Amino acid sequence: MNDFTSPQTFPVKHIAESTVRRLSLYLRFLEEFEAKGHETISSGELAAFGGTTSAQVRKDLSFFGSFGKRGLGYSVKDLTAAIREILGLEHPWSVIIVGAGKIGAALAQYRGFSSRGFTVVGVYDKEPARVGLKLDGLVVRPESELERDIHRLKPQIAVITVPAEAAQALVDRVTAAGIKAVLNFAPAPLTVPDGVTLRAVNMATELEILAFTLTNGTTV
Amino acid sequence: MNDFTSPQTFPVKHIAESTVRRLSLYLRFLEEFEAKGHETISSGELAAFGGTTSAQVRKDLSFFGSFGKRGLGYSVKDLTAAIREILGLEHPWSVIIVGAGKIGAALAQYRGFSSRGFTVVGVYDKEPARVGLKLDGLVVRPESELERDIHRLKPQIAVITVPAEAAQALVDRVTAAGIKAVLNFAPAPLTVPDGVTLRAVNMATELEILAFTLTNGTTV
Repeated sequence: MNDFTSPQTFPVKHIAESTVRRLSLYLRFLEEFEAKGHETISSGELAAFGGTTSAQVRKDLSFFGSFGKRGLGYSVKDLTAAIREILGLEHPWSVIIVGAGKIGAALAQYRGFSSRGFTVVGVYDKEPARVGLKLDGLVVRPESELERDIHRLKPQIAVITVPAEAAQALVDRVTAAGIKAVLNFAPAPLTVPDGVTLRAVNMATELEILAFTLTNGTTV
Repeated sequence: MNDFTSPQTFPVKHIAESTVRRLSLYLRFLEEFEAKGHETISSGELAAFGGTTSAQVRKDLSFFGSFGKRGLGYSVKDLTAAIREILGLEHPWSVIIVGAGKIGAALAQYRGFSSRGFTVVGVYDKEPARVGLKLDGLVVRPESELERDIHRLKPQIAVITVPAEAAQALVDRVTAAGIKAVLNFAPAPLTVPDGVTLRAVNMATELEILAFTLTNGTTV
């Protein structure tokens, strides 16, 4: 059995995004279970929560070693700790948000981030009217300070919430300054240097996919 | 060659989500091109904009019939109109937002929706402190009015931005009232009846996937 305290020994190579997504979901429910005082959880219970099967749960967890004992279920405490380690959530992550429009401002104040260990350490905008605005405890700073702040605060993740036409130039700047992970909300395809992970959330596209399915009576 | 004015004759069966996603992106650039007064566009130009290849562009468009002439490129105007028809954007869609917290309020005021033809016709919350708040032109209404408003306003799409534990009950209510397309921002897996399309955006999970890749030096 692997040692829960040594995640770096897990043979993590290429894990499917869908697996990471389910681990994130299992963790959410494990934390709820722990808060309610439950000590064990079965793969069946996790599967029901995650909208999947017991076999899938066991397969997902087997990527990282062997957890739990047949018939006794998983220790909620140990499995929570193990998944947090696997996902890299044992220490907090710091995040900057580039663009303080409606979406950027909402994300800066979104409790769903801080409750998962992601701390927003800076919010930036180029509009003088937005610089200096207070968003909960944060003050919007000028975009011109981006590089200096990245060197000083060492955030690991940049969230891009500027208009499409401004997005690539800002991603170029934050990655040149050392950012290795980017979450893009701008409705534009971006490129990043090798060694940088880019993910995108395009909310208008999600609505357009729904419009497509409603129009064509099909599924995607 | 298919008739651009008769999209309903296109043999649309199962189209990959990635294709619909690229069509949405091509449309964004075609509209920019049209605004700048360009009359034709090549598959190479569309490919460069969309971060893909000319061959992929031609394949994506071939699903729906034959567009453009070899060597002359595509007519920007005709292709724009054809993709808008394919995606079902020739008429406006009406959307309700259930949950007027930070994310719900930001989406209600997000210009990226209205500029793509999605009109928010109602925003709902169960908190008395939020009911009555003005978000641009919209006034937050009580959740208890959901069914009545769906029957009256006939929105086609519901965006769910309530806390995880409240989400399933609200999705059950809006689908029972006739909604056939749901975009879920709540960090919970939801189930919908047959015939309803559900899509999910989980922003904390996106950050967790980035944390995983940063921690494990891997990609997903």
